[in-house]
Amino acid sequence: MELPEILLRVVDQFGKIPGVGAKTALRQALLLSKWKEEELHAFGNIVKDLCRLKKCSNCGMFSDYEVCKICENEARGDVGIICVVESVTDCMAIENSHHFNGRYHILEGVLNPLMGVGPDELTIKKLLSRVSSEHVEEVILAINPSVEGDATCSYIRQVLPEKIKAERIGFGVPMGGSLEYLDPLTITKALEGRSQI
Amino acid sequence: MELPEILLRVVDQFGKIPGVGAKTALRQALLLSKWKEEELHAFGNIVKDLCRLKKCSNCGMFSDYEVCKICENEARGDVGIICVVESVTDCMAIENSHHFNGRYHILEGVLNPLMGVGPDELTIKKLLSRVSSEHVEEVILAINPSVEGDATCSYIRQVLPEKIKAERIGFGVPMGGSLEYLDPLTITKALEGRSQI
Repeated sequence: MELPEILLRVVDQFGKIPGVGAKTALRQALLLSKWKEEELHAFGNIVKDLCRLKKCSNCGMFSDYEVCKICENEARGDVGIICVVESVTDCMAIENSHHFNGRYHILEGVLNPLMGVGPDELTIKKLLSRVSSEHVEEVILAINPSVEGDATCSYIRQVLPEKIKAERIGFGVPMGGSLEYLDPLTITKALEGRSQI
Repeated sequence: MELPEILLRVVDQFGKIPGVGAKTALRQALLLSKWKEEELHAFGNIVKDLCRLKKCSNCGMFSDYEVCKICENEARGDVGIICVVESVTDCMAIENSHHFNGRYHILEGVLNPLMGVGPDELTIKKLLSRVSSEHVEEVILAINPSVEGDATCSYIRQVLPEKIKAERIGFGVPMGGSLEYLDPLTITKALEGRSQI
């Protein structure tokens, strides 16, 4: 059945959010259509405000200030360590583990020549300048395991000064995981990454 | 970890959509934060436009015109039949079955005295005026089965002129359903609603 243009445009917009399919978009648009005018205006304006979201000029994490609280916090113990992540969400995941006390650097993706993502599209230059200016001794590469992720790690190792220690996070069986249901590649990685007890 | 105010406000707005929990809202807000300024403005403006959504002055269905295409369509065969539904989405579900060729009437809910929904909060008066002005002979009550739905049907039957035929849609085993997994109430309804073959 034919729906009005105004509604279809909302469905279209919601459908552009990754993970929101046609059915969810329609359901959300129909639910929104019951909202009052002032509620819809608040929703619209708040979404528009999102373009004013600022990022830390140093690490690339969201921040209300020029430099984020993590970069500015001198009390964080491991100021000589930079943890390199792909995205803001990966950074949040590590920070929520409360087991890293250094600083972050957000790459904004991984190298992917087929998709036109080269070193200049990422924040690799900024990382190198931080390594020299911030007295960094160690770089932890918390990049997700994938062909592109592996290539990105190799590239960063190459361009980093040789005296800088670079390490990649460990791969293997996740906590609560069961060998029975894991893929062969993860099991291979777990065997390779074994440590003495 | 602390998120910026601008982002938290978007999370808050998305969380107000029924069915969107805190995690989904955060994920959607983070995805939107990657959009360009003009895309965010388009999204915001289109959502705000939703308050201009018009409804058919006759049946209450969404419509770009004063009277919707279904109400205006003289070619629809069963103009003497009105199908009463709770909501726009229920109307869409019936229309998509392509098995009803009359007109609709959207109640905007069901009677629910505990929640302050009485006959005046629904479009029952409008239904009665349509029944007399549109030469209606039959009213199909496509109201969902619930205590409130049942009460609403009884009420509408009472206030409708006696000469008008009123019928409620059938309840029973859904197509593809299995007796094994159905609740006792549905099976009771299916037994009550049996028909000769």
